[in-house]
Amino acid sequence: MADTGPQERARAALARQEIELPSWAFANSGTRFKVFPQSGVPRTAEEKIDDAAQVHRHTGVAPKVALHIPWDKVDDYGELADHARAAGVRIGTINANVFQDDDYKLGSVTNPDPRVRRKALDHLLECVDVMDATGSTDLKLWFADGTNYPGQDDIRARQDRLAEALDETYARLGPNQRVQLEYKLFEPSFYTTDVPDWGTSYAHCLRLGDKAKVCVDTGHHAPHTNIEFIVAFLLREGKLGSFDFNSRFYADDDLMVGAADPFQLFRIMYEVVRGGGYDADSDVVFMLDQCHNIEPKIPGQIRSVLNVQEATAKALLVDTEALAEAQATGDVLGANAVLMDAFNTDVRPMLAELREEWGLAADPMAAYTASGYGQRIAAERVGGQQAGWGA
Amino acid sequence: MADTGPQERARAALARQEIELPSWAFANSGTRFKVFPQSGVPRTAEEKIDDAAQVHRHTGVAPKVALHIPWDKVDDYGELADHARAAGVRIGTINANVFQDDDYKLGSVTNPDPRVRRKALDHLLECVDVMDATGSTDLKLWFADGTNYPGQDDIRARQDRLAEALDETYARLGPNQRVQLEYKLFEPSFYTTDVPDWGTSYAHCLRLGDKAKVCVDTGHHAPHTNIEFIVAFLLREGKLGSFDFNSRFYADDDLMVGAADPFQLFRIMYEVVRGGGYDADSDVVFMLDQCHNIEPKIPGQIRSVLNVQEATAKALLVDTEALAEAQATGDVLGANAVLMDAFNTDVRPMLAELREEWGLAADPMAAYTASGYGQRIAAERVGGQQAGWGA
Amino acid sequence: MADTGPQERARAALARQEIELPSWAFANSGTRFKVFPQSGVPRTAEEKIDDAAQVHRHTGVAPKVALHIPWDKVDDYGELADHARAAGVRIGTINANVFQDDDYKLGSVTNPDPRVRRKALDHLLECVDVMDATGSTDLKLWFADGTNYPGQDDIRARQDRLAEALDETYARLGPNQRVQLEYKLFEPSFYTTDVPDWGTSYAHCLRLGDKAKVCVDTGHHAPHTNIEFIVAFLLREGKLGSFDFNSRFYADDDLMVGAADPFQLFRIMYEVVRGGGYDADSDVVFMLDQCHNIEPKIPGQIRSVLNVQEATAKALLVDTEALAEAQATGDVLGANAVLMDAFNTDVRPMLAELREEWGLAADPMAAYTASGYGQRIAAERVGGQQAGWGA
Amino acid sequence: MADTGPQERARAALARQEIELPSWAFANSGTRFKVFPQSGVPRTAEEKIDDAAQVHRHTGVAPKVALHIPWDKVDDYGELADHARAAGVRIGTINANVFQDDDYKLGSVTNPDPRVRRKALDHLLECVDVMDATGSTDLKLWFADGTNYPGQDDIRARQDRLAEALDETYARLGPNQRVQLEYKLFEPSFYTTDVPDWGTSYAHCLRLGDKAKVCVDTGHHAPHTNIEFIVAFLLREGKLGSFDFNSRFYADDDLMVGAADPFQLFRIMYEVVRGGGYDADSDVVFMLDQCHNIEPKIPGQIRSVLNVQEATAKALLVDTEALAEAQATGDVLGANAVLMDAFNTDVRPMLAELREEWGLAADPMAAYTASGYGQRIAAERVGGQQAGWGA
Repeated sequence: MADTGPQERARAALARQEIELPSWAFANSGTRFKVFPQSGVPRTAEEKIDDAAQVHRHTGVAPKVALHIPWDKVDDYGELADHARAAGVRIGTINANVFQDDDYKLGSVTNPDPRVRRKALDHLLECVDVMDATGSTDLKLWFADGTNYPGQDDIRARQDRLAEALDETYARLGPNQRVQLEYKLFEPSFYTTDVPDWGTSYAHCLRLGDKAKVCVDTGHHAPHTNIEFIVAFLLREGKLGSFDFNSRFYADDDLMVGAADPFQLFRIMYEVVRGGGYDADSDVVFMLDQCHNIEPKIPGQIRSVLNVQEATAKALLVDTEALAEAQATGDVLGANAVLMDAFNTDVRPMLAELREEWGLAADPMAAYTASGYGQRIAAERVGGQQAGWGA
Repeated sequence: MADTGPQERARAALARQEIELPSWAFANSGTRFKVFPQSGVPRTAEEKIDDAAQVHRHTGVAPKVALHIPWDKVDDYGELADHARAAGVRIGTINANVFQDDDYKLGSVTNPDPRVRRKALDHLLECVDVMDATGSTDLKLWFADGTNYPGQDDIRARQDRLAEALDETYARLGPNQRVQLEYKLFEPSFYTTDVPDWGTSYAHCLRLGDKAKVCVDTGHHAPHTNIEFIVAFLLREGKLGSFDFNSRFYADDDLMVGAADPFQLFRIMYEVVRGGGYDADSDVVFMLDQCHNIEPKIPGQIRSVLNVQEATAKALLVDTEALAEAQATGDVLGANAVLMDAFNTDVRPMLAELREEWGLAADPMAAYTASGYGQRIAAERVGGQQAGWGA
Repeated sequence: MADTGPQERARAALARQEIELPSWAFANSGTRFKVFPQSGVPRTAEEKIDDAAQVHRHTGVAPKVALHIPWDKVDDYGELADHARAAGVRIGTINANVFQDDDYKLGSVTNPDPRVRRKALDHLLECVDVMDATGSTDLKLWFADGTNYPGQDDIRARQDRLAEALDETYARLGPNQRVQLEYKLFEPSFYTTDVPDWGTSYAHCLRLGDKAKVCVDTGHHAPHTNIEFIVAFLLREGKLGSFDFNSRFYADDDLMVGAADPFQLFRIMYEVVRGGGYDADSDVVFMLDQCHNIEPKIPGQIRSVLNVQEATAKALLVDTEALAEAQATGDVLGANAVLMDAFNTDVRPMLAELREEWGLAADPMAAYTASGYGQRIAAERVGGQQAGWGA
Repeated sequence: MADTGPQERARAALARQEIELPSWAFANSGTRFKVFPQSGVPRTAEEKIDDAAQVHRHTGVAPKVALHIPWDKVDDYGELADHARAAGVRIGTINANVFQDDDYKLGSVTNPDPRVRRKALDHLLECVDVMDATGSTDLKLWFADGTNYPGQDDIRARQDRLAEALDETYARLGPNQRVQLEYKLFEPSFYTTDVPDWGTSYAHCLRLGDKAKVCVDTGHHAPHTNIEFIVAFLLREGKLGSFDFNSRFYADDDLMVGAADPFQLFRIMYEVVRGGGYDADSDVVFMLDQCHNIEPKIPGQIRSVLNVQEATAKALLVDTEALAEAQATGDVLGANAVLMDAFNTDVRPMLAELREEWGLAADPMAAYTASGYGQRIAAERVGGQQAGWGA
């Protein structure tokens, strides 16, 4: 049988892409200085899901919505899952939130106070209940825990407490459920963070077992960190579980993924493809985690999905044979040129064709604008409490 | 007449130290993730001044309070100034706030919309009115203005708009009034900031004239920036106007000054002394600008004042003659040793003695605790609206 | 007359591009750990110029060669200029070198020892002699001067000495000669650098006068510095003189320009175009300053020239009207999309066409390989002393 | 029996301190721009050991010398060990060098060429022979391996090759021999480094087994990395093997330890003490790894040893009971104050006393100067080849 060629293989692979959207991206968000409210912002978990479904409607590659508990707390999670299905999407990762209660000022699961630790741990277990109810297979844990001042708390004791909470949470997981342990260099803690880097997350996941994986948030690294190296390394170790995609110029800016450094996003996606993370049987989860502080939220999500899709397309187009040969012979410029050739290719025409094959409009941004959805929600969603970080 | 020696000269210089406190340090503050409220937090500008006065009562070197408009908006600024005087302190720098109105989503004085620019400029002029009413001599301008995405706005046009606003504000200043132009690398804007570094502030101040000075916030620099170099350079150019003191491990953490890198604070104070910025006739303003997110606010301010005082004392103790000689002969280790000798000196006993000479308790932290002030305000300040960022 | 359209305007502008090559890029270079020698490396200034001429032969946009004195010291600079002309290129910027003599351990023009300062200054003046002899119009000054340890020398006194040397050098310039003052955050000095940032360079250039300009080396900034902001600002102030192009992932890696962050290079070139720095009457100089430690040198230079050319082409293709409209209306996503549309365009076919119009091969890398020049110099340049940093 | 008190416990602990000196610190070193030679620099491994012995003579806490092979290659390592013993010191860690041969341009053990990999691996095994001959128990591996350009080589394949080399080296170790795997963010490789962070080193060491430990070089981290967190974490995991002490303001400056941030060094030593790394039975190795580019080398080493000693003394003086109590009750300012109290203590008088108890001069720097050793070696070490990086 004839080889279908890299273009055909790329198209086939792009057809099975799944990018997961964060429900909170549709809510108001901002910096510590100010949250600028937008019109039409959802007031309920259902409205967030409706907005996410619009993104999928126009892109075709965003069929999942991640929830944040308690931001998306509802009485009946089964009904919420049904609502999602009816809207054409499904519930993805469940994100625990143990950083917005007054009790968590000095930490959640690593707090020196055992009462607070118990409360935080109970919330994590509650999140597994939500997984059971929604059919979600992934629990994402991000801990804001840490300290602001040297000496404030004992670095090692906090690791002991963290390990204890992780162990109990892990034990509660069902056979098809996983825990994704996110790391972050700093913010909101400024001196130490209890899971500051991939090494810390990796070490805990290793102890926990096969159902524990590392979550790589692309905005959570120290300056100059080579993220694609981490991706390649974790894939080799079988420990890459998921991405929180966003981009940044400085700290954890949570800008649209690919906006700050599209070449970096391409390099990351290349290592994902290279390491099997995009294979048909891969269980790596590709989430967005962003804040649209000043741009409209639904178009912001559409643009982000397109950015990931374009980077993936370029990564799939790398001529791997030519690359391997140049690498093997130590041809530095030649090997680099093979990679750059894929990056410099304009994949937008190919993706527009693909969308039309899938029965979608060639231009998702224009199609969304034409749909009138934005004006409709601005008109309808009046009254009630706008959703936002902490709402 | 006999030389009084470096110790005596240091003591005399320490007696005239004035550190300015920010009214907002006593209010609730936090990160974008959460503001943890504290008990006893002030509800009015007057209560903030009362708290600041406590810091001065126990340290003896914090006689001024900076205001933030509109956070500290009152009907009668003359009365507020009287309130301060009665409490033993006086009004210092007026800080403009053009970042917390919904109109400022895309900038204030650099906004593409002329209506918004006018509104922001009017606020700056209003702040000069407040200066007139309170007798304040310094207007501090920090602009959150910038962009989040490449292409979002025109970098150069924004400089033109900024220049226009600065020109009009400068023209409004009285003969004894100055403008302090603060710079900041990023946050809340993530791609460009309209005054990102000292060079930008310096260039604008140079155009404006003698009454325009650069404000150095110690947390507003790119990683690895040598702040004391900037201080030395600006003093040489006659353009150093003021400090916003705080410390940081990562970005603009706004931790207690000296908490993250006491050696850096010492080096900064050494260059201040070296360059004449601490001379009796210097008009450099030494402000704190901090957020006590998790520690109690009044003790947090006391500790910060003590940290600046200790760094100043060490800087004053440097054996400048020995240093100059080692430098002139290229004695690298010898010159470094002279500086380190001062830094390694424990100046706390000397400062305790000085306080007792001034009629204060030797240990300001203990004296504050013993005063019962903290419990009193926690009991009394119930009801009303706690002050906070944006409150 | 009909508008020729952006494509036509871009093609016309690309036809007058001039990228200047550094003679030292063709010599051996390395890190502090090791210099890996390459075959065919030039042994004389003439051979370096021959290699540079090859780059121009295949790209058509690299007609100038920058010299480094004393690395390119010859007895008769007039003859060297003739040699260049015969090879199809001309002498560009003269680079002074006051960092490789044993005397400069503690600095050159800022050294505490007046004898060393005089020696360094004499070298700067000698470089102006070379300019006179070669017809070069630009003197580039990079000072490695600084200190490694706090206290080692007096920061302010070093500025005084720097100013003195710059003043005397400036006074020596002819009417059509300029000085380009380069800045660099660190390396080889680790604590302070005497010209660490654009602000310092700008302030000195302002004092010196119109013939003093700032040189922006794209690898010389603190992490997270927004270089295009600096470019836009300096153009607005009329103080941008030149670029030293290269790229970096971490510090001053001196990799091929555009290799680490092609989007950044595009943003820089967009601001250059926007600010008039690419206008027909602009005198901004576009130099490369790179080290090909592991890749072959001539192809490394060709690739670098192509990278600048491609970024320039994309910058010229930005739909400035659509951009201005989106910016004016605060359309964040729309404005960003206009810029990204140009960046995402594959300009390689257009550039290949252009080259053929100019009588060149469509693919300069392939043409160079086919020329056999690389093998020829490897065979011929045997014996003698290979050129290198310090050779 | 009465508690001897923290001061007494600190003194006892300080008496058993062992800081290991790097033989190469006594040789010429520099930056990629220039090596400034110094007079009296050793020409042989024996002379390096003699210089190291001087440092121990005056400080009493530096009884070991680390070797670098092949920089310290000798015919008879047994004789070299005897020479060390006769000078009052002993051979410490053996450092492999697989970065200065022309073959290693594209890597050593991770090179795409199997011949080069074999050569590099053979060198590692040869270093174990040197350990056998000298009685050294530790093999330190730092790999300069990595890539400069995206695509240049396969990130994952390089990990496979690295693992293979480590496995074979580990298998060669005797029962009392260990391998210390060092990590470094960048330099001399600029895009990827094959062991860039502690997580990578940790993962390999975990696979290798109990005799593989992580080496923490304090200058090898991304900006803003919290090094003491890593120290605490690795001690908790039983995987901290050794330190390469130095300090830096920017990248891997290799300045004297404690010179850039003495508070950081104190925090690191506090975590070492807290985590048992300084216990009497701890096998953590405390090495210096520095370059004295501009300061004299032996005094530079003495100063560095004193800096580590002072930081250790302060760490040992922390009132751990008061600290634990403040931490347990969430007293942020109180806990920080306990730590700062130790840091602010001037420990120099206590250390001077201790030295006199040990029969040493109170002031090691003065004693070295008075010894005349520096002048003697400057006069005697004439002719021959000065040692240096690569010599």
